[in-house]
Amino acid sequence: MRTRVHVVGCGLIGTSIGMALSRKGFQVTLSDASPTAVALARDLGAGMPASAADAAPDVVVVAAPPDVAASVVVDQLTAYPSAVVTDVASMKAKVLDDVAEAGADLTRYVGSHPMAGRERSGAVAARADLFEGRTWVVCPGPASSPRAAAEVEQIARATGAATVTMGAEEHDEAVAAVSHLPQVAASLVAARLRDLPDDALALCGQGVRDVTRIAESDPMLWTQILAGNAAAVAPVLDRMAADLDAVRQAVSALGAESRADGARGVVAKAIADGQLGHARIPGKHGSAPTAYATVIAVVPDRAGALARLFQDVGDAGINLEDLRLEHGVGAQVGLAELSVLPAVAERLREVLSHKGWSVHE
Amino acid sequence: MRTRVHVVGCGLIGTSIGMALSRKGFQVTLSDASPTAVALARDLGAGMPASAADAAPDVVVVAAPPDVAASVVVDQLTAYPSAVVTDVASMKAKVLDDVAEAGADLTRYVGSHPMAGRERSGAVAARADLFEGRTWVVCPGPASSPRAAAEVEQIARATGAATVTMGAEEHDEAVAAVSHLPQVAASLVAARLRDLPDDALALCGQGVRDVTRIAESDPMLWTQILAGNAAAVAPVLDRMAADLDAVRQAVSALGAESRADGARGVVAKAIADGQLGHARIPGKHGSAPTAYATVIAVVPDRAGALARLFQDVGDAGINLEDLRLEHGVGAQVGLAELSVLPAVAERLREVLSHKGWSVHE
Repeated sequence: MRTRVHVVGCGLIGTSIGMALSRKGFQVTLSDASPTAVALARDLGAGMPASAADAAPDVVVVAAPPDVAASVVVDQLTAYPSAVVTDVASMKAKVLDDVAEAGADLTRYVGSHPMAGRERSGAVAARADLFEGRTWVVCPGPASSPRAAAEVEQIARATGAATVTMGAEEHDEAVAAVSHLPQVAASLVAARLRDLPDDALALCGQGVRDVTRIAESDPMLWTQILAGNAAAVAPVLDRMAADLDAVRQAVSALGAESRADGARGVVAKAIADGQLGHARIPGKHGSAPTAYATVIAVVPDRAGALARLFQDVGDAGINLEDLRLEHGVGAQVGLAELSVLPAVAERLREVLSHKGWSVHE
Repeated sequence: MRTRVHVVGCGLIGTSIGMALSRKGFQVTLSDASPTAVALARDLGAGMPASAADAAPDVVVVAAPPDVAASVVVDQLTAYPSAVVTDVASMKAKVLDDVAEAGADLTRYVGSHPMAGRERSGAVAARADLFEGRTWVVCPGPASSPRAAAEVEQIARATGAATVTMGAEEHDEAVAAVSHLPQVAASLVAARLRDLPDDALALCGQGVRDVTRIAESDPMLWTQILAGNAAAVAPVLDRMAADLDAVRQAVSALGAESRADGARGVVAKAIADGQLGHARIPGKHGSAPTAYATVIAVVPDRAGALARLFQDVGDAGINLEDLRLEHGVGAQVGLAELSVLPAVAERLREVLSHKGWSVHE
């Protein structure tokens, strides 16, 4: 018998889950406060609108906005007394606490967090492959049954995600540092660009583009996320504020040309600490950071130029581990930074040079 | 007669300038406090070691560390009484002030700032094409002669860079916001990763990778840059600290579940202000931001897969405006986000689907 999954909330995440599970043969039903959202999700192949005649679901996935996730979880645990219920909110301890406080059956609740999203929101932006290759964190509570945790992991993996299991507090502290703090920092840096003259903005390079890319995110969603994970986010913001204050005072001292020997040390330590932290980010596939070799090729800004480059890389039988494309203001060329295993870098350089590319380390 | 250029400082920037100018037929001489650096730069084709028998240079490029740039500029203005002298330090007002204070001939001095760099430093990392397609800011002082400014622009363009002319203060305020603040923010966010458990680091996604990429930068160099541009950086750090403090207090209030209605507004405004600032970053080629259409293709992690994708794009005669490659932890596939002009996006989707790619908006 096919597993029956009920998805509550037909936004980006819920609709994408429905699409991914429907493709894998799960029997998916959909509900949302908005009938239009349900109809759109159905049209996109996410499943069928739920009706009173449906058999009870085996698993309920609550993909409601973060600020109502817990109450919807409680409703679903009550409505379907044998179903496993999960939610997909970006913070897990508060949802678990609120569900527990409501006196719901915690053996059947397992919180989770698919780490995927897009700048666009709503069912219209949904994709069946949204979770392919992404991490989906599963956070069983102390009372969760092993069967419930296994069901949620099965759902997550069926969407193409890789699952990671950890406790709710552990999850919340992790995302506070690796997701919520970067969002706040990106937004605050980007906010400084609001009132700059156009001439100044012309000096934006790849650095500021990278630092501020996620500043495009939705203020409403992020307010809910930061409020919901406030307990874990606040201490991380406190530490960032203390560090920033130290750097700020040091730079002010250097500007005033007062005795500033200690000030230089404060600034240097802040940058050095950043190096050490950055070095800890895992490499591709969750492995330890791998020192890939980088080969840089100059690419003319013409149709087909990148195609030829990658054709030449592929012809050599070399796999690209990572790729970065850069182009500057006013440039008619770009730089493609090709990351490959160190053992093949020299051969890649030779192959590309031989084929006429301007190649660099 | 070939223009004679003397490069002082054979690090990454100086050696790269020498290589680029030598290729264009300039007659380049080199000096550095380290004879080894000069020899390496010569071997890389950056020019010939300077000797007492040399004719006086037409232009001197001071590519010394930022903290000694001004004094080297003064020495060169004195040593070559008819040469135009420029420097390449990341801050311009302090160098100009220090040169003026030394009583040097300001008519022949024109500060400049090539906006290029690499994570690696030293002559060994130099590239003749380091400046291709990059912006090179030229900052004539009030006393600079038009001829001197024109000479420096000629040198900058000969390396392949696009020149932008602005005043030293204007430059310094611009880079404080678009370069120096992002560096500090990236380093402080990355520093928070230092002491995280490995499990937490496994949740690092593309967001934190982008925000912290430049945290790899050199602490010594950045201490000099931030100290040298302290007058412009300090107020930008002050505003960031004030914004961060507001967000921090709002998140703390939300965590304490005290009356926090105003707190949600503070958080939402910070994220929204970031959206507005981010939207002002110019698009490719320095044009106004262009709304490119994005086509997303799922790419298997196999040699040649990207090559085939770009071959198919090229066969369709479609030019890629931008490109982003993403892959998640544990994934055997990646997502290639292809940015193209909106008019050709639909055709690109059709072509790629027809060729068997899994394609998404």
